[in-house]
Amino acid sequence: MQMSEKVSPILVSGFRDTDPADMIAKQRLIDEIMAVYRSFGFEPLDTAVVQLQTVLFEEFEYTDMDFFQVENSRKFSHSEAPRMALRFDLTVPLARYVAANIATLPRPFKRAQIGKVYRGEKAQAGRYCEFLQADIDSLFTGSVYSDAEIVAVMFTLFKKLGIDKFKIVINNRMICNLFPQYAGFNPDDLTAVLRVLDKIRKVSREETVKGLSHKQDEESKNPVRFLSNSSIRKLMYLIEKQGSNEDLLIYLKVKYQRAGLDTTGIVELEKMYEYCRMMGVDDKNLQVDFAMVRGLAYYTGPIFETYLTELPEFGSVFSGGRYDNLVSKFTEANVPATGASVGVDRLFEALKQLSYLKPLGSVVDVMIMVLDRSYMPEYLLMAKEIRDNGYNVMIYDGVDMSFKTQLMRAVTNDIHFVVIVGKDEMDKQVVTVKDLKTRKQSVLSRNEFTTYHFLNIITGT
Amino acid sequence: MQMSEKVSPILVSGFRDTDPADMIAKQRLIDEIMAVYRSFGFEPLDTAVVQLQTVLFEEFEYTDMDFFQVENSRKFSHSEAPRMALRFDLTVPLARYVAANIATLPRPFKRAQIGKVYRGEKAQAGRYCEFLQADIDSLFTGSVYSDAEIVAVMFTLFKKLGIDKFKIVINNRMICNLFPQYAGFNPDDLTAVLRVLDKIRKVSREETVKGLSHKQDEESKNPVRFLSNSSIRKLMYLIEKQGSNEDLLIYLKVKYQRAGLDTTGIVELEKMYEYCRMMGVDDKNLQVDFAMVRGLAYYTGPIFETYLTELPEFGSVFSGGRYDNLVSKFTEANVPATGASVGVDRLFEALKQLSYLKPLGSVVDVMIMVLDRSYMPEYLLMAKEIRDNGYNVMIYDGVDMSFKTQLMRAVTNDIHFVVIVGKDEMDKQVVTVKDLKTRKQSVLSRNEFTTYHFLNIITGT
Repeated sequence: MQMSEKVSPILVSGFRDTDPADMIAKQRLIDEIMAVYRSFGFEPLDTAVVQLQTVLFEEFEYTDMDFFQVENSRKFSHSEAPRMALRFDLTVPLARYVAANIATLPRPFKRAQIGKVYRGEKAQAGRYCEFLQADIDSLFTGSVYSDAEIVAVMFTLFKKLGIDKFKIVINNRMICNLFPQYAGFNPDDLTAVLRVLDKIRKVSREETVKGLSHKQDEESKNPVRFLSNSSIRKLMYLIEKQGSNEDLLIYLKVKYQRAGLDTTGIVELEKMYEYCRMMGVDDKNLQVDFAMVRGLAYYTGPIFETYLTELPEFGSVFSGGRYDNLVSKFTEANVPATGASVGVDRLFEALKQLSYLKPLGSVVDVMIMVLDRSYMPEYLLMAKEIRDNGYNVMIYDGVDMSFKTQLMRAVTNDIHFVVIVGKDEMDKQVVTVKDLKTRKQSVLSRNEFTTYHFLNIITGT
Repeated sequence: MQMSEKVSPILVSGFRDTDPADMIAKQRLIDEIMAVYRSFGFEPLDTAVVQLQTVLFEEFEYTDMDFFQVENSRKFSHSEAPRMALRFDLTVPLARYVAANIATLPRPFKRAQIGKVYRGEKAQAGRYCEFLQADIDSLFTGSVYSDAEIVAVMFTLFKKLGIDKFKIVINNRMICNLFPQYAGFNPDDLTAVLRVLDKIRKVSREETVKGLSHKQDEESKNPVRFLSNSSIRKLMYLIEKQGSNEDLLIYLKVKYQRAGLDTTGIVELEKMYEYCRMMGVDDKNLQVDFAMVRGLAYYTGPIFETYLTELPEFGSVFSGGRYDNLVSKFTEANVPATGASVGVDRLFEALKQLSYLKPLGSVVDVMIMVLDRSYMPEYLLMAKEIRDNGYNVMIYDGVDMSFKTQLMRAVTNDIHFVVIVGKDEMDKQVVTVKDLKTRKQSVLSRNEFTTYHFLNIITGT
């Protein structure tokens, strides 16, 4: 290429690269997540990132969600090109997949999936347009056991990651759906009430109360009177009730029974709580919370969110719920389903902040310095020997071949060992091995080197 | 959701899902690829799928490549929204990343990356718009050693996969660039000649000769006279020359020397061949081929492609080359670079066809049948014990809970073991374990079961 005008090497706002140091740590996190998913019997699936807009949107009201539209550059030759978009989660494409393959899928169908999803939101600190999610979902499942199992997976994963300070918050949408009857307000206002409750962890108590007492008028945009003071009082009292999980469950059950309301939701929540406990989920990591409602419209039963108690401002890092009607967007068949999603990138950032993830350095265990290109046959042979012993090895091959630059390359990239063979070593048929962590230097005979064990622990990722 | 009009659960043409059976096998392939990459010291990187069109296109003439344009759904509020597209490979985003981080990157910079890429081509059998690539690239590398290393990685990978029948074809772009001087034709016709040669493995000899003797006129679209018969004869003789790799290299060197042509390319190819041999690449898997030119415009030196000799029609499954000028699209700095890309999906399809990949069944090692929901505490405890022993376990939880359906679920999903605890077993405090592969059934005491080893080999993926 000629010296021409340079293109600015910038990214689209809201998108980013993940450099090797972070990728090594993130890959470990991903591997851990997927191993826990597998251990509960979830099988891997992959679906397309690009989907039809009719599949992703419409039926559900995502009118306030910005997304990425996709068009084929040759669309102009195809007047009836379908409208496409990048998926915003893994759940809707899963529902499509299940509907499309309904006759042949194993039942129950338990799938794990990790993949990138896209939201067209305005980029902010810590908020990206492209991020990685890791999902599990159980479909064609008939009992609340499968909901509780999702919670057990969450619990197991966090324990495996060495995290102790977290809360898995559980609730049931059927309970929320009876709030109008319970607190005495118009059922048409339920969606607006749930929208206020969904922000409860991010705002002050005053703001929640204000949000319940006034709402914005659709037309005038001015605040108009919303719930009555009595309704607000009843609702706030319920969701602020303190006590053990058992106490809260009994309290609400009695309240609903007295009010003559359907207790299906509360019985399901009790059952789910019981199963969670049976599966070894520690009560101190579980929290019944009637104010947790979840944002997405498609939930129909149990719902769950997970907070790192040291970083509550991060929001939920693992959440989901039952969505018995989502698949019926695509088929007449009845497909009960439940599942949850880990925001891998968000969890990764949180774990970094909390120092749960140690920097892992390089994938390279050993770097061979090139002191004389005529010794290359020897370097290549040594590299093969090291590799055959199970280590990751690189031979330095750069533009600047000075000793100092080569050594600095290993030091700055956090490579554990360097192997040095110059004229001295060649003459004596020895190899110098420098441990850059301990600063120890060993001189080995060529034979010793062939079977030398650099470390017990070999870089896995 | 109400009984409303159903949305058709279809995919965009050219896109597809990968079901669990294939994903399990594909994940093993991915893990193997990445492990070999690591063993040669390549570090993982991730870049964004959505990039600016100025980054991906323009400078290079991809005018005949269809791609996917991306627009934010809220673009209408932003009149100056940047033009975006889905990346069509991992190399151009890497060049952007390197230019953007040039001051802080380790040198040499060796990176491995796996990710989806997108081409807007018309969907055909075996040709998809979304596919997975796994790349390695070495940047700031000064010698042909790094090119040879890429070939050694390819060789090592194929050997690890158990593939023996493959050819890594090597050549050098500098050699091709002298074809006009060598064969006596107008240098302006070189691009058109290379385009003909690039198809040589897909067409008959006659078609190649025809392609060299006539080309389509830009304006009239009629075939017009192209290379002279003498030029065609010279070129065809060269590229059809038979002999050992050494013989071919010597032959061309002498020819070029006699013609007074620059032999830098041929000397580099010799050197690369020598390094490949030193690194243990078997001569029978290596093939010097002066007709292999590679499609992309950005190659500047050594180039390589890999064919499965049992499936030549699949085309190259692992290919690349040196591209010393690509990064200079973005920066004044000089960044020599070389690399290659595995078409993971294509390789996967090929390995399936050649039966190199055995079906791996389910990730689930053991399924616990639910014969009575009141025994759930016992089932949950057993599941935990099995999981703690390192196996993947699922508890059956479906809509249809009949014994036959549960057993069929395990059989059709290729699950190795089922655990049966009904009233009989509960009364006697025993567990029935059925090996569905051997049809053997064992009755274990509850204590034996706790430490029971189902298999020596545990499902890895």
